[in-house]
Amino acid sequence: MPQKPSIPKGTRDFSPTEVAKRNYIIQTIKKHFEVYGFQPIETPSFENYETLMGKYGDEGDRLIFKILNSGDFISKVDDVTYSSKKSSSLTPKISDKALRYDLTVPFARYVVMHQNELDFPFKRYQIQPVWRADRPQKGRFREFYQCDADVVGANSLLQEVEFVLLYDAVFTDLGLKGTTIKLNNRKILSGIAEVIGAQHLLVDFTVALDKLDKIGAEKVKEEMMSKGISEVAVEKASPLFNMSGSTSAQLEQLKTLLVNSEIGMEGIAELAEIVNTVEEIGLQSAQLQLDVTLARGLNYYTGAILEVGAPEGVQMGSIGGGGRYDDLTGIFGLKDVSGVGISFGLDRIYLVLEELGLFPETLDQSIDVLCINFGKQESLASLKLVGKLRKQGVKAEVYPSAAKMQKQMKYANNRNVPYVVMIGGQELSKGEFVVKTMATGEQQVYPLDKPEGFLSSL
Amino acid sequence: MPQKPSIPKGTRDFSPTEVAKRNYIIQTIKKHFEVYGFQPIETPSFENYETLMGKYGDEGDRLIFKILNSGDFISKVDDVTYSSKKSSSLTPKISDKALRYDLTVPFARYVVMHQNELDFPFKRYQIQPVWRADRPQKGRFREFYQCDADVVGANSLLQEVEFVLLYDAVFTDLGLKGTTIKLNNRKILSGIAEVIGAQHLLVDFTVALDKLDKIGAEKVKEEMMSKGISEVAVEKASPLFNMSGSTSAQLEQLKTLLVNSEIGMEGIAELAEIVNTVEEIGLQSAQLQLDVTLARGLNYYTGAILEVGAPEGVQMGSIGGGGRYDDLTGIFGLKDVSGVGISFGLDRIYLVLEELGLFPETLDQSIDVLCINFGKQESLASLKLVGKLRKQGVKAEVYPSAAKMQKQMKYANNRNVPYVVMIGGQELSKGEFVVKTMATGEQQVYPLDKPEGFLSSL
Repeated sequence: MPQKPSIPKGTRDFSPTEVAKRNYIIQTIKKHFEVYGFQPIETPSFENYETLMGKYGDEGDRLIFKILNSGDFISKVDDVTYSSKKSSSLTPKISDKALRYDLTVPFARYVVMHQNELDFPFKRYQIQPVWRADRPQKGRFREFYQCDADVVGANSLLQEVEFVLLYDAVFTDLGLKGTTIKLNNRKILSGIAEVIGAQHLLVDFTVALDKLDKIGAEKVKEEMMSKGISEVAVEKASPLFNMSGSTSAQLEQLKTLLVNSEIGMEGIAELAEIVNTVEEIGLQSAQLQLDVTLARGLNYYTGAILEVGAPEGVQMGSIGGGGRYDDLTGIFGLKDVSGVGISFGLDRIYLVLEELGLFPETLDQSIDVLCINFGKQESLASLKLVGKLRKQGVKAEVYPSAAKMQKQMKYANNRNVPYVVMIGGQELSKGEFVVKTMATGEQQVYPLDKPEGFLSSL
Repeated sequence: MPQKPSIPKGTRDFSPTEVAKRNYIIQTIKKHFEVYGFQPIETPSFENYETLMGKYGDEGDRLIFKILNSGDFISKVDDVTYSSKKSSSLTPKISDKALRYDLTVPFARYVVMHQNELDFPFKRYQIQPVWRADRPQKGRFREFYQCDADVVGANSLLQEVEFVLLYDAVFTDLGLKGTTIKLNNRKILSGIAEVIGAQHLLVDFTVALDKLDKIGAEKVKEEMMSKGISEVAVEKASPLFNMSGSTSAQLEQLKTLLVNSEIGMEGIAELAEIVNTVEEIGLQSAQLQLDVTLARGLNYYTGAILEVGAPEGVQMGSIGGGGRYDDLTGIFGLKDVSGVGISFGLDRIYLVLEELGLFPETLDQSIDVLCINFGKQESLASLKLVGKLRKQGVKAEVYPSAAKMQKQMKYANNRNVPYVVMIGGQELSKGEFVVKTMATGEQQVYPLDKPEGFLSSL
């Protein structure tokens, strides 16, 4: 019995329509990445075990897919490790490669390895799959694409401004109007922690603060206290739970809270400069929003933090995010190289465009012209015609066999073909071809040696 | 000490220029795949262990990269297997997924899984990486892209004709003139084996015959005999070692040899029909060539076999190949579905285009316009100008900081920027910008609020 085929959980097959839709998003992002001066790089799907391990915390280490060494891998394991029968001890002995978990660590590795070939500031984009052994859920997969753009070696806030404009340009081009680009700065968060005297609990503080929208102020305060942040400290921070007014007004409220924190005031100044410059230039369809609750899970951001929310009314987490990290390449020995970057959430953008009906209809049209096959001589004439059409970029094909007309027309319908060409014996002898426009049923005749008339009607 | 970073052997980083060149080839192939009516699909990078194992022979099984199960994988191994300490017994217990080895088996799996959603004949293309734990060599990698187009569910020889035309179209478009498309038919090879009475040794026979170009007739005969093919049989086949003349003449020579072999004559008839139809339509730049030594390593071809050779004078193995296999999906339980397909060898095509200097020069131009940064107010004006240029698809950026002029110009030179824009304090107050054409050193002034003049000069 042959096995009934299946695919690993958390992975997906993509049908032609799905590929066309995904490529539409990817090509749009890519176009704007390039127009903004970013250059593409690609890195291998798997990296050395030690390149990836220890970079994403314990949970990340567990979620990295390891690749089994080839050959007689067991013979390389020492007896002590083997008898321990512990998966964690055995893993590094039988695996020296692992699938990439994100595009940031491989990028850092790339910059360090190729530093002498690169022109800094180096603006790169990378659109490749990553793999995580996460528990699959709706919208969470074990294989998915990341679409990242980063700049390394530039401290200027112009980069942050550019990324805001880039988000706006991409989402506007995708027809996704009304997105919200949320902005924060890690220094503001540090300043807040400093003011409330809980600097060593900053991560706990920001993680709790991040939940404000979901669980409300009371529960956030409870969580903060349960993590060891004092009631006094939490009370001090309470203005943060009710910030309101324009961006400028909010920045003023922040200033009164952080006036004695040097780092906090630095964060406010940076944020103000970004906001002012973006306002000066103007956005096409996105809204800029200050959001001091924005912390994002990642611990490596040191400056600006960005996140994009879907238009109001669409139930969806963030569809993009990023920020500045001052020491991207330090883990690989290259110190003091500042990086700033953003990412687009392909799968979520796909779902949003689908929900709002924003994919262009033409994406579904995988073929423009189908020639009905009436037999050997006739199909030869069709093939010659099709050759001329293809040279003009028209997607055209001849049905492969002289099957019953009904079957061929059914195929044409299923593939959503707009034009069906017929060259039967009669047409062949007259040197003509008939074009049937499927939407209207209309038929038109053209000479076989002059298909230009048909071409210009396409 | 931070580790000195490296990448796994047999894998590659691709620089911006390399990505641009690879994408140029991929986009050209893709364009023609689509114009020929093929639709894209994508399958997961890893498949279930049992989907891949046993499909590529013992050697293939060894070369498949297996992925280690997550979590406490050792606890799932029974004691008997664990104490055996045998890698081959342990592997299936600690790995249930493996990286895809080619695109054909995943495609067969896809067709069977999705058979009720597909319209047959189903013409799909797939351009994705595959992985093999092969010993890395010059031009052989552990991660590389395959670019495949296949049709399933169509028996007509029109498909083979189409693939010949498709090869010709792609290589012509890439500027790679003078390729040779070699044609053979597995039935001819079977017929030959039948005539010489060595049917059970067909694989040995074809593998030896395949080496004719490399090692010469005598050594091929020696190898055949060493495999157990009788001297009489080898002598009977000797006309094959000296076929000459036009394709038609060669087909005639074949007919005298195979006149008593039904399957052999069938192969000749198929081949003749393909050759005649292609000749009737005509090729743009490729040469069609009958090659009875063409067997290709793969055992699954049952009809036509194709292979593309680089233009004369270029030292390179085949840059593409394919053929017909009558039972593609049988391994997954769907019988009698005929498939025919071809593949493009991306890495080799890259090397050939590089050697012949056929990559378009524009590929290296990752940015069209760089604005020199003279400070905050000036760069704001630059950013506004850049916004207008980008909306017209011009790749433009502002240098991120007001660094020394020399440094900014060096960056412009390194990135091969054709136009440098300068908006200094003076230009700003006059509402102008200066464009320097780097190739000539010429400078031109345009009004800031009317960049159309500059745009139209691009």
